Amino acid sequence: MTDFPRAEYEARLVRAQDAMAAAGIDALFLNTEAELNWFTGFRTAFWQSPTRRWYLIVPRDGLPIALVPTIGAALMRSAFTGRVEVFDAPAGGNEGLATLAGLLSAFARIGLPMGEEASLRMSLTEFDALRRALTAEWVDATPLLKALQTIKSPAEIAVIREICAIGSRAFAKLPSLAQAGRPLTDTFRAFRIALLEEGAEDVPYLVGGAGPDGYDDVISPPSTTPLAAGDVLMLDTGAQLKGYFCDFDRNIAIGRASDAAKRAHDTLWHATEAGLTAARPGAEACEVFAAMAGVLGGGSNIGRLGHGLGLRLTEWPSLAPHDTTRLAPGMVLTLEPSITLENGAMMVSEENILITDGAPELLTTRADKELPIT
Amino acid sequence: MTDFPRAEYEARLVRAQDAMAAAGIDALFLNTEAELNWFTGFRTAFWQSPTRRWYLIVPRDGLPIALVPTIGAALMRSAFTGRVEVFDAPAGGNEGLATLAGLLSAFARIGLPMGEEASLRMSLTEFDALRRALTAEWVDATPLLKALQTIKSPAEIAVIREICAIGSRAFAKLPSLAQAGRPLTDTFRAFRIALLEEGAEDVPYLVGGAGPDGYDDVISPPSTTPLAAGDVLMLDTGAQLKGYFCDFDRNIAIGRASDAAKRAHDTLWHATEAGLTAARPGAEACEVFAAMAGVLGGGSNIGRLGHGLGLRLTEWPSLAPHDTTRLAPGMVLTLEPSITLENGAMMVSEENILITDGAPELLTTRADKELPIT
Repeated sequence: MTDFPRAEYEARLVRAQDAMAAAGIDALFLNTEAELNWFTGFRTAFWQSPTRRWYLIVPRDGLPIALVPTIGAALMRSAFTGRVEVFDAPAGGNEGLATLAGLLSAFARIGLPMGEEASLRMSLTEFDALRRALTAEWVDATPLLKALQTIKSPAEIAVIREICAIGSRAFAKLPSLAQAGRPLTDTFRAFRIALLEEGAEDVPYLVGGAGPDGYDDVISPPSTTPLAAGDVLMLDTGAQLKGYFCDFDRNIAIGRASDAAKRAHDTLWHATEAGLTAARPGAEACEVFAAMAGVLGGGSNIGRLGHGLGLRLTEWPSLAPHDTTRLAPGMVLTLEPSITLENGAMMVSEENILITDGAPELLTTRADKELPIT
Repeated sequence: MTDFPRAEYEARLVRAQDAMAAAGIDALFLNTEAELNWFTGFRTAFWQSPTRRWYLIVPRDGLPIALVPTIGAALMRSAFTGRVEVFDAPAGGNEGLATLAGLLSAFARIGLPMGEEASLRMSLTEFDALRRALTAEWVDATPLLKALQTIKSPAEIAVIREICAIGSRAFAKLPSLAQAGRPLTDTFRAFRIALLEEGAEDVPYLVGGAGPDGYDDVISPPSTTPLAAGDVLMLDTGAQLKGYFCDFDRNIAIGRASDAAKRAHDTLWHATEAGLTAARPGAEACEVFAAMAGVLGGGSNIGRLGHGLGLRLTEWPSLAPHDTTRLAPGMVLTLEPSITLENGAMMVSEENILITDGAPELLTTRADKELPIT
């Protein structure tokens, strides 16, 4: 019932336990969707419900120990776990906490992701009670998990390659979907359906915009405004296969494109070229940022020019001035240059790449150098 | 740029500030998707990215104060907010924290949702630093938010009514989608497309199962196993419109249905009838549970027999023995009886209802009394 063979999870566990030994961490305490999936293959849409908590303990020796509500027991037992403990939920709060404290009391030094990009999928009341119940030292497991999860296995890369290909095929249909007079809401819906028809299992992320030569921002839901001649439409999708995301966009001009829009698109294309040249093993994330920013003539008002991806739509590292993460083969990244035109509109372009021993592998079918017009 | 007129958010704010005054809370500190949408109308798929934090402060007097990354500034300024502060992100952690502490330092008693169903969408390192930087007393705002948000406004009810109608129309197509020999993965995909075609904006939740007379669990992703004669197929969807969810399922037998499967479906139908009769204003959630459990001959191995819904797929209250929440007009609930057959398979049925002054309004087209066969 897991997406990969058992050997995949065994290999991940060995890497994790080696890193735990090196860091002096006796157990990892995890309770978020991506972490549970990465370690055990437990995958469910049920994370949409905030009601119940899902706990996983990865000891330095032996199989992961799960503590889950009854509703998830069967699925968790079919995942890569050893002991699976069950509690009744919902019951108004603190469900399973006493059992959890008992299981964790065996460990002196507990790693919890509590740094960059982390959040806590339990209530503060529950976590504070847990912290009080234990004498353990809590350490930030974010650096350890980042080092493990940014390097994708061949099996993971194969899935990401496939969802990127699905996205590329759906974007190839864009000229027939994006037409003057069609409301943006309808265009979003048609593209979402195209992604599913091409093989995506889900489309958790779809944003975009349209306007003269560009758009106002890149995170808005669609308006009902009809597309108009001279608009540049951008759609940006995180479609999913077996829990893994692609994350890229495409721009297309409706009817005609101004010289300013064409120049902006050309600049983005060359910024991506610079990113592709810089994205070599051993380079730091900030160096890839700098290579792209050089072409763009500055940084980005969205804060970075690309990022990691995998079981999350966005992951470490960030292609940004602060990030000195060293690229290594197996990392999957987006290159995402953005530019602001003289009329104040934005244009953003995004590709997904795999870091290899040499030049990166493009996972997406590269955007046309010239701004397409439909 | 918000889904409702300004008056809707003004009315919510007045209700919230009245409740804050009564509870002696000077400001609410919020940082999760549903809370920000409910108070300001800020809605974006960008919550899929765990990288950035989004902060909202609701003071006891005046408009909500937002503190967001640059990428979201334009959208947040178009929402129902007063002051909007901006910070650069990502920058490796703690982005915006100093500004946040400054803004919160004006308040002596700060309400934060830290109880039932709550989580914390920032890192523990960040929250601990914030707690250390302030002398404020932190109080659990969960009861206050629960009281406010479980009662839906007429505008919210209209949207939920519409997404439930969309779901009902998509389920009406199920007999033509569910066919012997078709893999469950394909059936999921076809149903997801049907939901979009009928008007859903997104389908964040789709689970289900199929097997002889029922299924093993209700949270698994689809297998590639083809549907077979004698299977009972269940699909359960949380489709979305303007951020609001429906959440209901339907069962259908493939080719033929056994007497056991027919009896189980009939029992679920009568349990729902009992729920509809019990779901009156003034009744406690546990009483609706008891009415349904009486028909089923016991409780549920999924922990409850229904729940609230709205901007979250599942919300308080729970139709469960522990929950004494008193039903009131404007609450939207699911009735979700489940049963285990003699062969160990499960069957679950779910409807969405609105609590009124009298009998509840069915928001979903009621499931057939007899198990449909296709």
